[in-house]
Amino acid sequence: MGTEVVIIGAVAIGPKVACRIKRIAPDTKVTLIDQDSHISYGGCGIPYYIGGDVPELDALYSTSAHVPRDSSYFENVKGVNVKIRTEALSIDKKNKTVKIRDLHNKKEENIKYDKLVIATGATPVLPPLPGVNLPGVTVVATLHHAKAIKDMVSKGQVENAVVIGGGAIGLEIAEALTDLWGIETTLVEMMDQLLPTAVGKDMALPIKNHMEKNGVKILLSEKVTKIIGDEENGVKAVETSNSTIPCNLVIFAVGVRPNSQLAHEAGLAIGNFGGILVDERLKTSDPDIYAGGDCIEIRHTVNGQNVHLPLGSLANRQGRVIGTNIAGKDCSRFKGGVGTFCIKVFELGLAKTGLTVKQAQASGFDVVYSVVVQPDRAHFYPTQELMYMKLIADRKTRRILGAEAFGIHGDAVKARIDAIAPLLQYEADIDVISNLEVAYAPPFASAMDIVNNAANSLDNIIEGIHDPIDAIDFISDFKNSNTRALDVRSPVQAGPFVEKYGNKWINIDQNILASRLNEIPKDEKLYLICGSGPRSYEAQLLLRNRGINKNTKNVQGGIGMIKQTDYDFAP
Amino acid sequence: MGTEVVIIGAVAIGPKVACRIKRIAPDTKVTLIDQDSHISYGGCGIPYYIGGDVPELDALYSTSAHVPRDSSYFENVKGVNVKIRTEALSIDKKNKTVKIRDLHNKKEENIKYDKLVIATGATPVLPPLPGVNLPGVTVVATLHHAKAIKDMVSKGQVENAVVIGGGAIGLEIAEALTDLWGIETTLVEMMDQLLPTAVGKDMALPIKNHMEKNGVKILLSEKVTKIIGDEENGVKAVETSNSTIPCNLVIFAVGVRPNSQLAHEAGLAIGNFGGILVDERLKTSDPDIYAGGDCIEIRHTVNGQNVHLPLGSLANRQGRVIGTNIAGKDCSRFKGGVGTFCIKVFELGLAKTGLTVKQAQASGFDVVYSVVVQPDRAHFYPTQELMYMKLIADRKTRRILGAEAFGIHGDAVKARIDAIAPLLQYEADIDVISNLEVAYAPPFASAMDIVNNAANSLDNIIEGIHDPIDAIDFISDFKNSNTRALDVRSPVQAGPFVEKYGNKWINIDQNILASRLNEIPKDEKLYLICGSGPRSYEAQLLLRNRGINKNTKNVQGGIGMIKQTDYDFAP
Repeated sequence: MGTEVVIIGAVAIGPKVACRIKRIAPDTKVTLIDQDSHISYGGCGIPYYIGGDVPELDALYSTSAHVPRDSSYFENVKGVNVKIRTEALSIDKKNKTVKIRDLHNKKEENIKYDKLVIATGATPVLPPLPGVNLPGVTVVATLHHAKAIKDMVSKGQVENAVVIGGGAIGLEIAEALTDLWGIETTLVEMMDQLLPTAVGKDMALPIKNHMEKNGVKILLSEKVTKIIGDEENGVKAVETSNSTIPCNLVIFAVGVRPNSQLAHEAGLAIGNFGGILVDERLKTSDPDIYAGGDCIEIRHTVNGQNVHLPLGSLANRQGRVIGTNIAGKDCSRFKGGVGTFCIKVFELGLAKTGLTVKQAQASGFDVVYSVVVQPDRAHFYPTQELMYMKLIADRKTRRILGAEAFGIHGDAVKARIDAIAPLLQYEADIDVISNLEVAYAPPFASAMDIVNNAANSLDNIIEGIHDPIDAIDFISDFKNSNTRALDVRSPVQAGPFVEKYGNKWINIDQNILASRLNEIPKDEKLYLICGSGPRSYEAQLLLRNRGINKNTKNVQGGIGMIKQTDYDFAP
Repeated sequence: MGTEVVIIGAVAIGPKVACRIKRIAPDTKVTLIDQDSHISYGGCGIPYYIGGDVPELDALYSTSAHVPRDSSYFENVKGVNVKIRTEALSIDKKNKTVKIRDLHNKKEENIKYDKLVIATGATPVLPPLPGVNLPGVTVVATLHHAKAIKDMVSKGQVENAVVIGGGAIGLEIAEALTDLWGIETTLVEMMDQLLPTAVGKDMALPIKNHMEKNGVKILLSEKVTKIIGDEENGVKAVETSNSTIPCNLVIFAVGVRPNSQLAHEAGLAIGNFGGILVDERLKTSDPDIYAGGDCIEIRHTVNGQNVHLPLGSLANRQGRVIGTNIAGKDCSRFKGGVGTFCIKVFELGLAKTGLTVKQAQASGFDVVYSVVVQPDRAHFYPTQELMYMKLIADRKTRRILGAEAFGIHGDAVKARIDAIAPLLQYEADIDVISNLEVAYAPPFASAMDIVNNAANSLDNIIEGIHDPIDAIDFISDFKNSNTRALDVRSPVQAGPFVEKYGNKWINIDQNILASRLNEIPKDEKLYLICGSGPRSYEAQLLLRNRGINKNTKNVQGGIGMIKQTDYDFAP
């Protein structure tokens, strides 16, 4: 007789572990337990179901061959025992049993295991505010939530919605409500930027602008203090530190907490973020218990610190590792993560990997970064669109710590981030990215791709031959000081800016700059600007090399980044 | 006074070197020499100019700010001396001079250098066949060729064209002629597949089918023996080993040869492929002479062998390395290449990195590979399209040697290849790709992305639990033998195949396969098929584990790959 494996949790990683074990070691008895009736579903698809891209709910729990992944599918096709609507109450490590309760008939029993897998996931945080339990206030975690929300919106019951939380799920839900249903949607975020754990403020601001352009109201640096309404009519408004927003739907998306209570009560080691601690085999502190997915903490490969990264992609990969190890090979390893992430926000795609500047600083790195704006195809190719990238490194070791990018062609954005992400685990330095051999053809890239140029720019900054300023800081200082800008684009391009900003905006075309050096303000602080940064970088070198002005700052990403940062800055 | 640098060749790498030096070390005197009048142009854009995507020729030699990159641009803006229409006749290493000739007034002179850069590029091969010098027979290398071809086609002078050579340029030119101009175009390739140095035959066949569907006639395994025509009326036909193709335009794209004659005559070391040999600093065998771009050989990082990789992207990256080293830092390195490549072919994008199966075998590796077909977004996301990927590794070390992919969303294809390419230099193994943390969100990927699944499948093959066959081999054997196929898709999907192929095509849905094992042919050779491969892989395990049939072969990529391989196979 084979081993007996019990898996608690059947959303993403649980089923993956079960199937992998049954494929390698078919004699194993595998039992999959879940409190819910829906199992093995694509939770990440919920915003697209609400937003109508995915018309039917069953698409989220069917195989690509349109077979529902329900209990009978796992039992008949995969040979896995499934107990749905079943709660795991406690784990007895010594006797290797799990006490479970059938939520239907309330019967309890102890089931035996040789190997146990905890795949209990995470639960959205519902902060303890007045009114959070009113009808019309919800989180988005399960297909039940998805269905309830879609029912409300599709019946026209929602005129105004408030989404609380500016992380990935908050953004996706806000888009879903606004885009298809035309619901007046307000997104409230406590921090001073969207996607605060994913990217820097400078990269988040263009996303905010784009969302606002598409009809989402966004309130940053605002704390929700109260949900107003009554039991009978449901929610009526959300009260924040600064305003009251009328609404009849409130969705909390302020983050998730690992479901580690069961593991904790069983005496398994828990980390600082509340996640179960595991080794590279994904074993917990008990050698017969594995854990994976949103309920564990993993090692962030860049700073070596533990982190809670609740991502469906990581869960699936961990599932295979656990399955392989339990099925007797014990050779598979999960070495950690680098937090690679992407999101579609209306027409924009954004992706990132590694640490943000703030996270890198907090980890003790001496952070330096470049911002580069460049077409995503050859600049002469007709479908080209500007792409915006930030590359982050440690000054001393020149090691790459992270990268962030956004643009119109989301797949192209993903391509750049996915090219950098694999290098983080090898502690690759700037030179590796300078010479990174990404695929080139004019319909898909430039000969010197944005990843190469971002590394080259970073090299120039570290070597002290490029002295940049971010568009966001330039805008703020330019508006609030007397510092002038030298625009080295052609008079046709710069003319409207000169008209708008008067003598604060000097225009001398880079092509004739060398012959008009006497017109340059000498040694006063001066901002240098061109379309996307490289020509004004050359101007900076020229002014410095000729001894004209060593006090210039080149606006990284130029007018391209300025326009994304502040839709009203350009004339 | 600064150093004097002479650069021979001003297309891609020459100007890059010149500008980099002037930025870092502005006192350097840099002289750029080229035989042509056009310099610093994007040669890779020529097919898009001919095909109309790029309407004007000057787009190929202008900056992204629409400034022509001509002599006066480099002189006035970049501070570089430019001598166009000037030929470098010889190099005197001892006296450090180059003898040059002004092609206009035929005057010769010797110019001094402290550092010399050879960036002479490569020349398209024009095989010594009868008729290759007839009017209407051309190669595609310079903007003069581009203009001449476009003039001919846009004036309606070309009804039929023959493109000789099935490499990247041949494919791009054939598409350009067919797509915009409706010219009846025949592409002739000597080998038995398109893109023979880039990808395997199995990946090239879908490209051929797609091109044929779009109107290009393709002749494989045919040698051109003669070009027929006369001086007055130009070319009339191309004669091959098997046929005579009437035409009034012939374009040779059979490869390029490094322009290393000058270097050879100067006594510099030349490699087996005729390219100049350089070290990691891109120095030739003379310490004061550098070389880069299409005229050199580089080290292929995967097999350590020298290779001639004429790619504009590599040239540009090498340019920065040479520039940095000459400008006094001597710290920059170019460690070699892995041959990452991509191409758009009508509606398809194809990309690859590393070695093909054949190249890997020739390099002494024990080659094993997987083929995986999977949607490029979450399978429930509406814009998803199938993507096709091949992942190649060494059996013993499990080291990844190469990857090839194609699909409708070219950026998404590029994303997958660019995620694998950076890992080749680190000798990453299959496990690294199994857990590769590429960005995930339903609009851009699956939670288990195709790169992860390709590695998992490869792992299963090496571990002996997956026994696959390629679609191309299945089709050939199925048509020519009595071997039967077991299709485990639903009866709705499999029905038409059963109708077409009769009792050779058995259909039992994977969902009920376990209950109908008695219907399975026992121990006879049997092909297993599903939509894309995973269900028939599970069927293979089931039949083996239950002792029913250990002689099955799972068709990798399933019906998805079969349909791409042979448009007529499916009913």
